[in-house]
Amino acid sequence: MKIELGIPKGTRDFGPEQVAKRHYIMNHIREVFELFGYEPIETPAMELLSVLTGKYGEEGDQLLFRVLNSGDFWKEVSPEDVAKGSAHLANVICEKGLRYDLTVPFARYVVMHQHELAFPFKRYQMQPVWRGDSPQKGRYREFYQCDADVVGTDSLLCEAEIVLMIMEVFRRLGIEDYTIKINHRELLRAMSEWIGAAGQEQALCVAIDKLDKIGQEGVVRELQERGFAQNQIQQLLPLFEVKGTYAEVLKHFAQQLKELASAKKAIEDLQTIQNLLEEASGQPLDTFPLMLDPTLARGLSYYTGAIFEVKVNNVAIGSVSGGGRYDNLTGTFGKEGLTGVGFSFGLDRLYDVMEALDLFPKNTRAGVDVMLVHFDTESRKGLLPLLQRLRGASIKAELYPQADKLKKQMKYAHKKGTPWVLLAGSEELQRQSVQLKNMYTGEQLEISMDEVVGFLKQKLYNG
Amino acid sequence: MKIELGIPKGTRDFGPEQVAKRHYIMNHIREVFELFGYEPIETPAMELLSVLTGKYGEEGDQLLFRVLNSGDFWKEVSPEDVAKGSAHLANVICEKGLRYDLTVPFARYVVMHQHELAFPFKRYQMQPVWRGDSPQKGRYREFYQCDADVVGTDSLLCEAEIVLMIMEVFRRLGIEDYTIKINHRELLRAMSEWIGAAGQEQALCVAIDKLDKIGQEGVVRELQERGFAQNQIQQLLPLFEVKGTYAEVLKHFAQQLKELASAKKAIEDLQTIQNLLEEASGQPLDTFPLMLDPTLARGLSYYTGAIFEVKVNNVAIGSVSGGGRYDNLTGTFGKEGLTGVGFSFGLDRLYDVMEALDLFPKNTRAGVDVMLVHFDTESRKGLLPLLQRLRGASIKAELYPQADKLKKQMKYAHKKGTPWVLLAGSEELQRQSVQLKNMYTGEQLEISMDEVVGFLKQKLYNG
Repeated sequence: MKIELGIPKGTRDFGPEQVAKRHYIMNHIREVFELFGYEPIETPAMELLSVLTGKYGEEGDQLLFRVLNSGDFWKEVSPEDVAKGSAHLANVICEKGLRYDLTVPFARYVVMHQHELAFPFKRYQMQPVWRGDSPQKGRYREFYQCDADVVGTDSLLCEAEIVLMIMEVFRRLGIEDYTIKINHRELLRAMSEWIGAAGQEQALCVAIDKLDKIGQEGVVRELQERGFAQNQIQQLLPLFEVKGTYAEVLKHFAQQLKELASAKKAIEDLQTIQNLLEEASGQPLDTFPLMLDPTLARGLSYYTGAIFEVKVNNVAIGSVSGGGRYDNLTGTFGKEGLTGVGFSFGLDRLYDVMEALDLFPKNTRAGVDVMLVHFDTESRKGLLPLLQRLRGASIKAELYPQADKLKKQMKYAHKKGTPWVLLAGSEELQRQSVQLKNMYTGEQLEISMDEVVGFLKQKLYNG
Repeated sequence: MKIELGIPKGTRDFGPEQVAKRHYIMNHIREVFELFGYEPIETPAMELLSVLTGKYGEEGDQLLFRVLNSGDFWKEVSPEDVAKGSAHLANVICEKGLRYDLTVPFARYVVMHQHELAFPFKRYQMQPVWRGDSPQKGRYREFYQCDADVVGTDSLLCEAEIVLMIMEVFRRLGIEDYTIKINHRELLRAMSEWIGAAGQEQALCVAIDKLDKIGQEGVVRELQERGFAQNQIQQLLPLFEVKGTYAEVLKHFAQQLKELASAKKAIEDLQTIQNLLEEASGQPLDTFPLMLDPTLARGLSYYTGAIFEVKVNNVAIGSVSGGGRYDNLTGTFGKEGLTGVGFSFGLDRLYDVMEALDLFPKNTRAGVDVMLVHFDTESRKGLLPLLQRLRGASIKAELYPQADKLKKQMKYAHKKGTPWVLLAGSEELQRQSVQLKNMYTGEQLEISMDEVVGFLKQKLYNG
């Protein structure tokens, strides 16, 4: 019987090369996070639905993957439960769901472990999340997030360091042309107030967050639908068109909105972030890939301060990183007033960027450095101690496990991208030597067994 | 409103120290796997239930976590489905489940990707798995497995290399006193035949697999219940008591069971494994932590050749690794006759062993090397460039983000286990110097700003 084979829609298998490339990115991110003093935590794939639901809006709740209760899940279900429909029923027969992001589990973690933690608590977390979205290019149902957050301090040094961390990660990955957009929720609030729509900054944010997707006309329509008056919109639009250097944009808003308290806070914060970056680097802000973008809004409702988004230029891939400050993330779990700021790299998008720009090093794949070929029990016997010596010198090595035809063994090494092949027939073994062939250049030489390890180390690490 | 906080039964949060220690183990395992030519793959957390069910026995099917279908999962459900009970209903409303082990996803992967792969295909995989078992000490509902398998060759070099890999991982982790038990399914088959119970080796395996748990009396009872006659059991028991060196046990069975074809295959294989280990190491097998144990059975039905199990001695923790050869793992997915051999490390048990033997290095935790203390905007301004210079030299560093009281900042560094604290008041800054304090020894010195990086590098990497 042949079973229909497949994997769930929107999920992926990763082969050796893909895993190696994904780890290449994650290792660089991890190193930078740790360099800046962030420490790792990990949380379970499953969370209680009581923790997850109500945190991501109505749409988010629908996209949660729910896990059926173990055992006789139907025992407690009443006809009334069935009659109430599947949304209700799902909550009766499931008490767990798969993690939807890393932010809510982080907030839950902080509250549950608050008495063990040293505040300000700086954590990073790199784990998969799951969302029942319709899969499409670049959007998956299982994907990795790489988050760093610090909670328990309102110091704007954290915001400045987020900029520095993004720059350091990109420098290490070789990504050169990118823009870190920054804005401030209080500036958006001030804009609402300034056009006479105080308290409606959330609606404003949701509308302008779509600017990239639906254009300015679309945003105008969206604002109309959300109850903004024509004259308010007319007054708003010029604000979005303010352009220039970070300092110029900042100066513009400082003058235009100077009478609003919310603007004052935003301007001060943005000015302090500039000062900190200049003090840390000794460079003027003009040298930073930073843009103060009044149209940057970020959809999520919990942001309250500076917000970020990072876009790699000249690549048709959405933002690869984003984040911002929030004042009360843990409030919903019973711990009020813990301010924090965090951001996230999207691993899958960064991967696509790296591929598009051809930035992965040639030898990312984890395969061996050298494959040993043998022809019979005798040559295997002669090569086994050498195999162990190579490994003892940290040279990744394998002995092709069967005495297949030479051609087949060479083809195997070629298919796996193995750089060196080592052969020894009875003649070489008698001379205590081996043939060494470079699979890229075709270069071949005979070398004594005692010299192989040293020769390969030289070639592999100083080549 | 305060929400009841918690995580699902049998799952765990891992804090910074635990994550660092888990990664310490996984990194060593990964390095050894790659040294031996195994390459990483990753598969989705969710698999189709059609792939998972029927592979782990009836009990296993019950322990699968099922994921509720997205959207209106109830749409297609008929009253008949409800009447058939929850086991049936679960398969109507769920088409996906969480990975239960890494072996079945691997088999599915090999068949789906067979045309891209170079055979023999050597892969490793380190990912979490989920089982709805009753949680108890050392048994969790989410835990990590670290598997290495090679399929597409019957070479016993693979078995020998599994022994070498286990030894190399343990050497790197510092685990010295352990036993690698080895046996062969064909030897167990020969035993069945020898006592006149041909074809009942599976029942035999299931019974003696419980020897550790229920003792010899229990096994005798179990064998009786499974239909073995009293005289068969009497004939069997002395076989289980054969003890001695690997060579002695091998010789014993070679003589006692010499007329049975199945024994011949087992004896030959075990002899070849011995030869290969001796050829590779240049050492006699007596020097290996290897034991030929006729009572080792392994519960899983798919094993057909050599089987392994590893126990760390003098620690009350179950086996930390196990595996064996299988001849037809992929048959159920439509690819017949692909022989292979693999084994798995249980990360959580290895972790417990490392803790019990106190084998983790002192500084596993990922925290910073040095924390900078500041008192006001001026001292922050003076320290920021130094902070960046330290990081530029790969010294993990953080600046405490607020100008809190010195005592509070020191307490923070202490709680996080930071080894060095760096302070600079206005006097030091005027002198272009800083105070550096070692938090372990209490040692404190004043040092010029230009020398700090070099001094710390020396202390951290050559101390």
